[in-house]
Amino acid sequence: MSKIHWKPGTMIYPLPAVMVSCGDSKENYNIITIAWTGTICSNPPMCYISVQPKRHSHQLIKNSGEYVINITTKELAKATDWCGVKSGRDFNKFEEMKLTAGKAKHVSAPIIIESPVNIECRVKDVISLGSHDMFISEVLGITADEKYFDKKTGMLNLSKLRPLAYSHGFYYELGSMIGRFGYSVKK
Amino acid sequence: MSKIHWKPGTMIYPLPAVMVSCGDSKENYNIITIAWTGTICSNPPMCYISVQPKRHSHQLIKNSGEYVINITTKELAKATDWCGVKSGRDFNKFEEMKLTAGKAKHVSAPIIIESPVNIECRVKDVISLGSHDMFISEVLGITADEKYFDKKTGMLNLSKLRPLAYSHGFYYELGSMIGRFGYSVKK
Repeated sequence: MSKIHWKPGTMIYPLPAVMVSCGDSKENYNIITIAWTGTICSNPPMCYISVQPKRHSHQLIKNSGEYVINITTKELAKATDWCGVKSGRDFNKFEEMKLTAGKAKHVSAPIIIESPVNIECRVKDVISLGSHDMFISEVLGITADEKYFDKKTGMLNLSKLRPLAYSHGFYYELGSMIGRFGYSVKK
Repeated sequence: MSKIHWKPGTMIYPLPAVMVSCGDSKENYNIITIAWTGTICSNPPMCYISVQPKRHSHQLIKNSGEYVINITTKELAKATDWCGVKSGRDFNKFEEMKLTAGKAKHVSAPIIIESPVNIECRVKDVISLGSHDMFISEVLGITADEKYFDKKTGMLNLSKLRPLAYSHGFYYELGSMIGRFGYSVKK
């Protein structure tokens, strides 16, 4: 393999393509699509989203300190892309994309009913890094489509979920399953 | 869709399954597999990894303040899983997995030659969150397999790369491409 050096860049992929819902009343509900998100701590469960200060949702999230991460799938791909391109200053994104704002259990921000997994978050800290502010957040609760609840184990089983991936400018479905964590040492 | 509420958890997926190489001399080179990683800022390019303090690599990264994120593919899946299960206290992971430690351009940590994209990082801050410490880092440079360099555009084109994904306990290949960022508004 021949290697070339390249300038610094954002090359960690694949990333989740999630729709983040925010706002604290019907009048200002909004959706922003985000790939700069992930888990930062397992216990307590914590996550982050990074948002440009110029984005309409930035102020909404800063004001309320709350938001919901909505996992997306192939069926939601077009809405996911559209909500990442358009601004809530110009459109009611829920109406335009025919998405349903549902009541969250822990936060004032709405959940997106059509998303299979909704992750309710509260901001603990905001770190300004340059083009983006990072919202360090705690996960308050999960709402999931009942079909992912495994009655036998009493756990959420997401192996049937094919969450949308974003990789260097393109959206992908997840493909073949290669193995379960730990498979390399199983006998 | 019938919804159920669930306790807080780590449900943001898919995430990258990367091998992080660390250590500052041949004697202590190590590899840890990490999914709690992502981009936190575009300009300057910044990223994070979250690591449990008990992990062998935690001390190595804390000591040197440097590491390399190595993107993985299907061919590296077994090594990726193995390096996430075993400890560098017990094994020389490069030797065991027949991986080659190459010289990085900006940091003392090695790159993994067999990985198609190596992202050299320097720690700017460490935030203790609970089970995990988050290493807030700047990206210093990228090394990529030459085949991803597009001579026409002078850019890196990773659309042929199928980086390994991790989703709720399972590794996946990326599947079908759904669209390019902005496709929902293209005419």
